[in-house]
Amino acid sequence: MKTVIAMGVMIVGVLFLAGCCSVCPGSPKPVVKRIQMVTGIKPEKIAYYKELHAHPWPAVTKMIQDCHIRNFSISLKQIEGKYYLFGYFEYVGTDLDADMKRMAADPETQRWWKETDPCQSPLPDAASKGKVWDNMDEVYFLK
Amino acid sequence: MKTVIAMGVMIVGVLFLAGCCSVCPGSPKPVVKRIQMVTGIKPEKIAYYKELHAHPWPAVTKMIQDCHIRNFSISLKQIEGKYYLFGYFEYVGTDLDADMKRMAADPETQRWWKETDPCQSPLPDAASKGKVWDNMDEVYFLK
Repeated sequence: MKTVIAMGVMIVGVLFLAGCCSVCPGSPKPVVKRIQMVTGIKPEKIAYYKELHAHPWPAVTKMIQDCHIRNFSISLKQIEGKYYLFGYFEYVGTDLDADMKRMAADPETQRWWKETDPCQSPLPDAASKGKVWDNMDEVYFLK
Repeated sequence: MKTVIAMGVMIVGVLFLAGCCSVCPGSPKPVVKRIQMVTGIKPEKIAYYKELHAHPWPAVTKMIQDCHIRNFSISLKQIEGKYYLFGYFEYVGTDLDADMKRMAADPETQRWWKETDPCQSPLPDAASKGKVWDNMDEVYFLK
């Protein structure tokens, strides 16, 4: 009887640890990176951009999640007569560059970007690098 | 023996539920609100603003946390030759207005704002309401 109970406790313990640890021992430990970014949006494309993002394509959503992006929000704001999109997300993986390349290589994501890219009007820094979004510099964080 | 095991299982169950539920039964259930906001910053004040936020005052930090604000980050970005601050936070309380009023009434927070306000240059919408930060409109969210 004691052996059965001990085995039960051991199994529960192993299941608990498996639930708590998302990383295998020895693998790089992910550190949450917060990314804030900005791009312009063409006024005549705001309605379509909103419509797209009210019903995002499931395969695109899955790819974002597979690439270790969490808590991703995009907001719209007019500043000095021009419209901008502001993005915030948390990266919970261990290789942001590799995940971004993986996302860029995904055919469904490429098809999605064919819809969103013509809506956006990148700032000069991003445009000069062939990118859409410009990253910002974090000056404060409180958990 | 069976009774002892049953009691053990019950205790573990109660502890598990207590750990999962952060709200007392009957009290309003908090829903996380994500806030993205923007304000201008005077170029000559950027260094001082960064210095302040690299060493925030403990009483101000405590008041922010007591007012149910979590995951609060502020980033800096230059857009079309002007500098802006972009804030992101999550509100986990049940009465945002009441918490904001509580924060505004706190003497240490008022003393902190006497340092930060002269650094900032609010957008017209915020300025017309006597506010510093302008809220944005969320168009997308992926958990």
